[in-house]
Amino acid sequence: MRLSQFHLRTTKETPADAELVSHQLMLRAGMLRKLAAGLYTWSPLGLRVMRKVENIVREEMNHAGAIELLMPTIQPRELWDETGRWQKFGGQLLKIKDRKEQEFCYSPTAEEAVTDFARQELSSYKQLPVNFYQIQTKFRDEIRPRFGVMRAREFLMKDAYSFHLTDEDLAREYKNMHAAYTRIFTRLGLQFRAVQADSGAIGGDASQEFQVLADSGEDAIVFSTASDYAANMETATAAAPGPRPAAADALQKVSTPTQKTCEDVAALLGIPLARTVKSVAVMTDDGFVLALVRGDHGVNEIKLAKVPGLADYRMASEAEILEHLCSEPGFLGPLGPKKPIRVVADREVAAMADFVIGANEAGFHIAGVNWGRDLPEPDVVADIRNVVAGDRAVDGGELRIARGIEVGHVFQLGRKYSEAMQFTVLDENGKAVVPAMGCYGIGVTRIVAAAIEQNHDAAGILWPEPMAPWQVAICPINPKNDAAVNDAVQSLYDELAAAGIEAVIDDRGLRPGPMFADIELIGIPHRVVVSERGLAAGTFEYRARNAAEAENLDRDGLLKRLAG
Amino acid sequence: MRLSQFHLRTTKETPADAELVSHQLMLRAGMLRKLAAGLYTWSPLGLRVMRKVENIVREEMNHAGAIELLMPTIQPRELWDETGRWQKFGGQLLKIKDRKEQEFCYSPTAEEAVTDFARQELSSYKQLPVNFYQIQTKFRDEIRPRFGVMRAREFLMKDAYSFHLTDEDLAREYKNMHAAYTRIFTRLGLQFRAVQADSGAIGGDASQEFQVLADSGEDAIVFSTASDYAANMETATAAAPGPRPAAADALQKVSTPTQKTCEDVAALLGIPLARTVKSVAVMTDDGFVLALVRGDHGVNEIKLAKVPGLADYRMASEAEILEHLCSEPGFLGPLGPKKPIRVVADREVAAMADFVIGANEAGFHIAGVNWGRDLPEPDVVADIRNVVAGDRAVDGGELRIARGIEVGHVFQLGRKYSEAMQFTVLDENGKAVVPAMGCYGIGVTRIVAAAIEQNHDAAGILWPEPMAPWQVAICPINPKNDAAVNDAVQSLYDELAAAGIEAVIDDRGLRPGPMFADIELIGIPHRVVVSERGLAAGTFEYRARNAAEAENLDRDGLLKRLAG
Repeated sequence: MRLSQFHLRTTKETPADAELVSHQLMLRAGMLRKLAAGLYTWSPLGLRVMRKVENIVREEMNHAGAIELLMPTIQPRELWDETGRWQKFGGQLLKIKDRKEQEFCYSPTAEEAVTDFARQELSSYKQLPVNFYQIQTKFRDEIRPRFGVMRAREFLMKDAYSFHLTDEDLAREYKNMHAAYTRIFTRLGLQFRAVQADSGAIGGDASQEFQVLADSGEDAIVFSTASDYAANMETATAAAPGPRPAAADALQKVSTPTQKTCEDVAALLGIPLARTVKSVAVMTDDGFVLALVRGDHGVNEIKLAKVPGLADYRMASEAEILEHLCSEPGFLGPLGPKKPIRVVADREVAAMADFVIGANEAGFHIAGVNWGRDLPEPDVVADIRNVVAGDRAVDGGELRIARGIEVGHVFQLGRKYSEAMQFTVLDENGKAVVPAMGCYGIGVTRIVAAAIEQNHDAAGILWPEPMAPWQVAICPINPKNDAAVNDAVQSLYDELAAAGIEAVIDDRGLRPGPMFADIELIGIPHRVVVSERGLAAGTFEYRARNAAEAENLDRDGLLKRLAG
Repeated sequence: MRLSQFHLRTTKETPADAELVSHQLMLRAGMLRKLAAGLYTWSPLGLRVMRKVENIVREEMNHAGAIELLMPTIQPRELWDETGRWQKFGGQLLKIKDRKEQEFCYSPTAEEAVTDFARQELSSYKQLPVNFYQIQTKFRDEIRPRFGVMRAREFLMKDAYSFHLTDEDLAREYKNMHAAYTRIFTRLGLQFRAVQADSGAIGGDASQEFQVLADSGEDAIVFSTASDYAANMETATAAAPGPRPAAADALQKVSTPTQKTCEDVAALLGIPLARTVKSVAVMTDDGFVLALVRGDHGVNEIKLAKVPGLADYRMASEAEILEHLCSEPGFLGPLGPKKPIRVVADREVAAMADFVIGANEAGFHIAGVNWGRDLPEPDVVADIRNVVAGDRAVDGGELRIARGIEVGHVFQLGRKYSEAMQFTVLDENGKAVVPAMGCYGIGVTRIVAAAIEQNHDAAGILWPEPMAPWQVAICPINPKNDAAVNDAVQSLYDELAAAGIEAVIDDRGLRPGPMFADIELIGIPHRVVVSERGLAAGTFEYRARNAAEAENLDRDGLLKRLAG
């Protein structure tokens, strides 16, 4: 490829409305053009990168035994009504009426469509297991599309759906997909982590996210220094606390006239924040619950909702708090409620002694509180907090927190969709059984942005080689249009092509400065400068995109370097 | 690939609602599943074929210097308002409101989006010419989706758009695309014709359709026996008629009490239909027009609209006919109108003598009519008729008519879109000029159906090799699961793979009858049967899909045949 035959359009200006580095660099490199909010045209340069990702995803999915098909982007309401998701999916579902006023949506995911396909195609256990996937455009009507293709409305997704006779076989395929994803992100040259995720309202037993590590990532991911344990913040757990110390202090009511936060109370009393207890008042159908976490911890809403009876909890209103605790927020505590309440203590709180709580009286807290002695043991002890960096991990290591960008998700769905859509196959005994399902997604377009977030510097993008639009840029310095330079360029290009290395010749006739700036901005991993002077000395100037300096190499040395 | 690892589901029954052979066979072969009217899921088998087509299209577009990009399927109304097509496109445009009540459409074509991209990306003559293309899902809200993917609502289209400084350069690229399309359809192994088409309301100077020849085709295409002249019915033209013979008969009013058609009048008078003249009454802004064609010819509406002043003609009402001709339909003619009218005669009519026309009086015609003698020469003489098979061609040959399925269209758009969207670039003198545009479409999904219409027999599909899901089916006959048979199958498969031939092993364990029926139905070009008996004799049973009989070949003979 010669750049004069391609279409490249870079800009120096950083677009004002682009907050994220990847968005800025994709616009500056001319990979994207905005058509409307959350809708982007992929330029030839951008598309080259996206196709590299798409091809690696496809190869590894095929290698893992998944079978590609293609479902329509536009899907009828009737299917989505069968699972109730026409209503439940929310505003992200783009709803459409055709010329006959029939209702459709633009598929944001395809569980319904693939289950409909499966129930028509599959009738016998002999046809299972099977894993169907597609690489197809999706649409989610984001309320605030932003960050370029990181959170666009229209995007390319690989979505796979597997069908199984048994849960054990689903678990096997889940592992198989996990391994395929690991190969995909490894081949893409990205630093990533597979982290445990919450399977949430979708049900099912297991769910993991694949996160590309990047400081700008929206997600906090937790990992251990001692093993490959990793989880997202929603599910990460620390080691259980040690045994509760014996009580040492006497109970004491202290005046805290303006101290409504644990931080302020600890400062006033001159004690560590970890000696205070935060009381969070929530309501359930069964009544009032006080959730307790250490003053230096935060409540994890996902974990709290998993406590029996709290699946549908909501925050208590001030009126409800006054009714049950006879106090106002800021001074709440589990001691002496006005009406019976349920106390759910985080494991760390249950292991505390001599701690500080609100007095249920405006302007006062109580110090030296001890379980058993001053108040009954908690009704429930559970892990209901977010972990923090430095926590001890279950495996004995230390928990650390990194930022990540979710680019993949594997999921054991169970029978939620197959049951709702009345999909059965006959088993070996001729009995109708509802197949178990797994689903496995990869955000193809998002990977492109995530790779840039992870790999860039002041000059531009640093593509991992497998994602680069070209591996090598050949840059002639040839103001006199010297035939020897042109011949050397073509001959080098041909030799690289024969070795299976994709090169691009920058024959746009730019001066070296702007030419090199473009090549760095668009992130080509290897740059080779061909000049009259170099040829006279028998050398090419070579520079790796991530190297500090260029070096002069003879032809053999250069080819060896590029082949390596 | 082993079929046991794939997903194949064929049926014997011909679906009741599928009229077209391609639709029937695609359903029977399990290539498609209907999701809703005009919306189909492409099964793994169907998708394999579609991807073969897509890849050949992509390779040849790249080879021709076009550059691939990708535009969103969802496009904002504002762009379509700039060209007026938001209103003018009609009911096929699927209009959508997002959660913020902003208006969008699902792209049925992308002239607006690509011109918007171009006006942001291109500012100088140095960036021209350029040809951008995409292979992207399109949606047209057909009022009556039918014939499976032949006229589906959602489909895959390759659409290319080129930009040029001059009309000459546009003409050059148009030729270049014409050549690329010829390579594409030739490589696909299809019998096709490039035919002249009407450039219609879109304007521009040239337009050609690529038609796959098939008896079931919706389009009539006209070609000459003497050259490569070919055109669709809208534009096809015959040689001009010879000189007008001298008048021989006297003018004579004849009673035709119930004879309202030329056929009936000719039968009554015992004369050839070609001696009668059909009068078609139409209205324009400038008044009443009578269009005349020979009784055995039909008016071509496209050609008639090209007569100066008739661009927006409509059929005249009975009241308008009575007002101008003082008669009722069935007895109209150009002789003695009540009010002044304009007469537009087809070239053939202008060359007639002693002909028959309506008398403008119910129940009567006039025979022996001659131009000049009985009525003034026509106001306009033009080619306004459809050609018929057997007409003399301009090149001296004979015109024949075949049926075709339109699968591609190349178009010189001119400046319609670039002007409406105020897209200019600076030319060499720094002057802003509006680029000329071409557009070039290929219906990827439709090609799959068209290929089946052209290539099938009673047993199923006969894929041209480049489109076949696999080139070779290896069918083991192995009821005892003999290792020697399995080894021979695998070794043959490996050898074919090494030679770059895609084979599939039918290891589903079916009996020979159903297995062969499936392989024929899905159209695999070559079938090789591997059996214990054959191995003992040192032979494989080979049958080409289009051969009447199978033959026994030794290994070398087989490989030679498959490589050929």
